[in-house]
Amino acid sequence: MRIADLPTPALLLDLDRLEANLQRMADRARRLGVSLRPHIKTHKCLEIAERQRTLGAKGLTVSTLYEARVFAEHGFSDITWAFPVPLTRLSDAREVAGRAALGLVVDTPEAAAALEGLGHPFPVWLKVDCGYHRAGVDPGAPTSLELARALQASRVLRLAGILSHSGHAYHAPSRGEIAAVAEEERRVMTAFAARLREAGIPVPRISVGSTPALSVVDRLDGVDEIRPGNYVFYDYTQSVLGSCRVADCALTVLASVVSSQPGAHHSVVDAGSLALSKDRGPDFAPQPSMGEVFEDYGRGLLGKAIRLTSLSQEHGILNARLPVGERIRILPNHSCLTTACFDEYHVVRGEEVVDRWKIWRGR
Amino acid sequence: MRIADLPTPALLLDLDRLEANLQRMADRARRLGVSLRPHIKTHKCLEIAERQRTLGAKGLTVSTLYEARVFAEHGFSDITWAFPVPLTRLSDAREVAGRAALGLVVDTPEAAAALEGLGHPFPVWLKVDCGYHRAGVDPGAPTSLELARALQASRVLRLAGILSHSGHAYHAPSRGEIAAVAEEERRVMTAFAARLREAGIPVPRISVGSTPALSVVDRLDGVDEIRPGNYVFYDYTQSVLGSCRVADCALTVLASVVSSQPGAHHSVVDAGSLALSKDRGPDFAPQPSMGEVFEDYGRGLLGKAIRLTSLSQEHGILNARLPVGERIRILPNHSCLTTACFDEYHVVRGEEVVDRWKIWRGR
Repeated sequence: MRIADLPTPALLLDLDRLEANLQRMADRARRLGVSLRPHIKTHKCLEIAERQRTLGAKGLTVSTLYEARVFAEHGFSDITWAFPVPLTRLSDAREVAGRAALGLVVDTPEAAAALEGLGHPFPVWLKVDCGYHRAGVDPGAPTSLELARALQASRVLRLAGILSHSGHAYHAPSRGEIAAVAEEERRVMTAFAARLREAGIPVPRISVGSTPALSVVDRLDGVDEIRPGNYVFYDYTQSVLGSCRVADCALTVLASVVSSQPGAHHSVVDAGSLALSKDRGPDFAPQPSMGEVFEDYGRGLLGKAIRLTSLSQEHGILNARLPVGERIRILPNHSCLTTACFDEYHVVRGEEVVDRWKIWRGR
Repeated sequence: MRIADLPTPALLLDLDRLEANLQRMADRARRLGVSLRPHIKTHKCLEIAERQRTLGAKGLTVSTLYEARVFAEHGFSDITWAFPVPLTRLSDAREVAGRAALGLVVDTPEAAAALEGLGHPFPVWLKVDCGYHRAGVDPGAPTSLELARALQASRVLRLAGILSHSGHAYHAPSRGEIAAVAEEERRVMTAFAARLREAGIPVPRISVGSTPALSVVDRLDGVDEIRPGNYVFYDYTQSVLGSCRVADCALTVLASVVSSQPGAHHSVVDAGSLALSKDRGPDFAPQPSMGEVFEDYGRGLLGKAIRLTSLSQEHGILNARLPVGERIRILPNHSCLTTACFDEYHVVRGEEVVDRWKIWRGR
């Protein structure tokens, strides 16, 4: 089957680009001297995780307990749930931990105490705020050292290490500033580890990550593990950030023109917010866009900049009048959220559809 | 089971509020002298559609062919797919039409010709632009009359009527201006029908709709059918528009606090953009919000205005420091997109969970 035969909308995954992206990050991790524990929240797909494992990934990172359960049931035995463990999901987590080594993330004494009460020897990562200021303990606060000591002293839990996410790299407007965020993360984490070690608390591993930071960083001295996710597909946001070229982006939404009126300056396609998400892209995009359009995927973005200017539930508004029935491929602002709109990838090589892979979405 | 026992995040549907909303719109339709063909893209749920039918709904409206198929397979025999039919889905549409009367929407000669070629006697609605300027023919253009004539003259298709959606009501900043949009829609549609009838083209029915317009309009003379969807749940946007009170909103996301750091002014909850969507709410909200928070659902919004200030994939940032483990109920900006994030509703009455209903999402 060819792309031109597919019903729309459909989620297209370019296999050659995917494989190049997987190889590039695996090589980077090797050069940086760190192990790679890819975040599968971006792809939620067994076939991609298997390729990551083949290329040397050590374990997986997930964002939901559902993802942990699915991948545990399919032979992935070493999983980190990189989200502060909710007290409402402890018994579910205990159940999944019966099938795989399930690492949990903690940044409060309440969560530590609740896990202690469960009685299962979870590997526990202490989450550290490396400057993003979302979750994670303040590395300068005395309470953070106390929490690390409590985890280390636990008769039940095992302190696996310290973990951070440099999400603020997404708001840095240049490669130089992203590199500075990456270096800040490295510096904060290694300094905090040194402080813990001086206080007699062993820190087995330091785990960091975000795709923008890990796409530009040159050195990660002292770091043990990285957890990028988005790099498998990239997206329009990553191309604006400089993490990738547009020609590296592996994921597009195939849509078709469904309405095009005489005299109008727009047309309507069958991909709206339930195909692309309402993510508005990077803060500093050249212009507002809900999705950039390829005329010929092989040749990259059109010079005349066709894009979606707004989305409603199933409608996308294109800033150009194209013929009814014409198929377009839309580069999404945020591939993670776009993936979560679909049940499967149509895997393509050139114009051929070579496979269909399931997307496991849930909580 | 009680709400306090549920894992988070969960999608809560307040049954009393739902039933009151269903009854109110059914009564309104009766008073306005129009039949009600509710848009099920908001709820995607058989149990709710059955209640709508019991209260007098004549047929359903859907936004995807998947919804059409599911509801046809479950005994709903009269369905309008209110989306300009994509040329890529004609054979799928033909197949669904074997199980139910499937009305299709057309606004281009290309789609009309393609349907004609299929040879199935589809009921076809001519979509009219009533001022929203998204899809639909220009009611003043000669080409629109030609397209109506072609549909009416078809030996295959049956012209079911003309149809519009006043989506611009969502951008009107007051009840008065929304009422003006509703009246404009009515006037445009009845005038276009008169023009067609004068030209010898029968117009069996006029179908209009949007929840804001239909929540405020007093008269719909000349209109036959309304297709509101969102009214079953309402949401924060509708409450700002004046379509409803906050106390009418039937859908909330139950989340729990997972991270709360000493000295911080925020906490993190386990509901992000994959639980709430990235919809930013109405243009003229009192303040930017990704979701408003109830402390006590029965008493309505908190005076001190706790809200989500930003979302990432699974994290929500709350503008207040609440204790770890505390459950909150979040009123979403857009209930249709929020529903599409979940597989099921937890149906609640007061604090009791009384049922679980499946959400049928797909294309």
